[in-house]
Amino acid sequence: MSDVAVVGGGIIGLSIAWRLVQRGADVTVLDGGDEGAWHVAAGMLAPGGESEHEDPALIGLMERSAALWPAYAKELEVDVGYDDTGTLSLALTADDLAERARMWTRQQLPLLRPTELRDLEPALSPRVRAGVFAPRETQVDPRKVVSALRERLGARIVAKRVEDLSDVDAPQVVVAAGCGTAALTGLPIRPVKGQVLRLRGEPGLLRHVLDAPEVYVVPRADGEVVVGATQEERTDRLVTAGGVHDLLRAALELVPGLADFELTETTVGHRPGTPDNAPLLGRLDDRVIVAAGHFRNGILLAPVTASLIAGLVLGETDPMPAGFSPRRF
Amino acid sequence: MSDVAVVGGGIIGLSIAWRLVQRGADVTVLDGGDEGAWHVAAGMLAPGGESEHEDPALIGLMERSAALWPAYAKELEVDVGYDDTGTLSLALTADDLAERARMWTRQQLPLLRPTELRDLEPALSPRVRAGVFAPRETQVDPRKVVSALRERLGARIVAKRVEDLSDVDAPQVVVAAGCGTAALTGLPIRPVKGQVLRLRGEPGLLRHVLDAPEVYVVPRADGEVVVGATQEERTDRLVTAGGVHDLLRAALELVPGLADFELTETTVGHRPGTPDNAPLLGRLDDRVIVAAGHFRNGILLAPVTASLIAGLVLGETDPMPAGFSPRRF
Repeated sequence: MSDVAVVGGGIIGLSIAWRLVQRGADVTVLDGGDEGAWHVAAGMLAPGGESEHEDPALIGLMERSAALWPAYAKELEVDVGYDDTGTLSLALTADDLAERARMWTRQQLPLLRPTELRDLEPALSPRVRAGVFAPRETQVDPRKVVSALRERLGARIVAKRVEDLSDVDAPQVVVAAGCGTAALTGLPIRPVKGQVLRLRGEPGLLRHVLDAPEVYVVPRADGEVVVGATQEERTDRLVTAGGVHDLLRAALELVPGLADFELTETTVGHRPGTPDNAPLLGRLDDRVIVAAGHFRNGILLAPVTASLIAGLVLGETDPMPAGFSPRRF
Repeated sequence: MSDVAVVGGGIIGLSIAWRLVQRGADVTVLDGGDEGAWHVAAGMLAPGGESEHEDPALIGLMERSAALWPAYAKELEVDVGYDDTGTLSLALTADDLAERARMWTRQQLPLLRPTELRDLEPALSPRVRAGVFAPRETQVDPRKVVSALRERLGARIVAKRVEDLSDVDAPQVVVAAGCGTAALTGLPIRPVKGQVLRLRGEPGLLRHVLDAPEVYVVPRADGEVVVGATQEERTDRLVTAGGVHDLLRAALELVPGLADFELTETTVGHRPGTPDNAPLLGRLDDRVIVAAGHFRNGILLAPVTASLIAGLVLGETDPMPAGFSPRRF
């Protein structure tokens, strides 16, 4: 029996466990074996880039976590693909531009003309109408992060599917089971399906993360390019003709040169969404703490979630930031 | 040592071997293990549906083989997906219509209006402009055909990659190695890359094979739908973003309801093309006979090829049809 059991072997559970281990706690991770949303996630670290999140508490949490990422990536001691080249946020139509201009003004990012954008990223389509360079919006490779965390935690990760929290033999339990958290706790977390593609070609066609209204395109140093994502209120795991078509169409409209890239993966994940799409972070009762419901921001929020939840487990008196109580609904 | 060695375990080689076995010959098939073009082929049996083939000799051969298919499928004794519901040949644009109208006139098929086409196939897009019903253009499932032939031939199929015909220990050798025939014989056969998709959904959305200028859509009874095919003068085996996009775009334009179908396979095959894209059928020397270069028509031409080549091996005096000599280039 460990002092603390973390239920969930995704990026949130592993990050919490690792932080606890670093701080001297005796931790076991119970990993149900499913690949979580991290497996398909592109790993955009975009604290200001999601226009729908205008809740100041969530923006504050995302900014705090984004600031932690460079040191967090370094602590993992292996290459996890942390890349701070930055993001081009783009508009292709007049409607896109009207919608995005509000966000860009709030972020105080100067509008770039198409020629300026193509100086930064020559493979961009001439159809791109306007955009901004967001230097603070970086990326990491979630698969490399999870692999590094698994390496660090080693035998502390145990293959076990938890069906009921009463089966967990530990005095403190952290539930970080993503979409699975709903069944374990009764909390309102719903799966939001996302289809994501991976392409592969000559490295160097693209340098920046590209964020457009209908698609994002995330180039890795090794020539992999992640293209995502559909957002569907569905629980199935089907890669569909329509989903793949829409992603490819939008990506090729943005970067025509991707047409010759190999299509290496078509995948589906489920983001753990909550009624306000902000995470559930905090104590449920004397024994159980929840860290779940990170929706589209699980990768970005992993470092701050790990620090906050580790502090809570270890009985520190620092208050949790307001607005994320699992009891708020 | 067998009397006859067939080099190539694809649909042509297996069909020839099986016909020879039925006629009492002692045959071994040497199978190099690569999946041939049959593995990705949709199995459209369209003797009149390829507008580019206006060579009367080839059209005659295709019609002769199409007439053999019903009995051939029956001889295999298991379900090989032979389906004679027929094909709708379609035009979406004025250009399509102008081009296809010539072919339809030659085939004496009456032009159908969009409403008539949708009476036959309700899932067709309203964008379809005109078309014809081609009742003689049927389909078969090439994977089921190959599986049935393998079953019939059993231990007569030996796993062996032939690099040189002098390594083949038989007095008579039939080379039916598809694209690999070029390296074995020096004959001018080139690989023509095709990307093909397989979708899956509720059976019954479509009943007919759909043949449009940019795409074909072949529905199977079990809900599989084959979507093909790119035609690229390339030797690589990459499934590309551009290839998959173009196929999905054209298929969804034709049948919007396919958007919800699962994308289950993205595959690449290489059609064995010849300088005139007609097959090479006949004797190369006293020992070696060739049956290769069937380009887009390998499935359709398998029964007639099997009968003709078996006759040649067995020394029958019936002449081969003119125009297919492997020595013609």
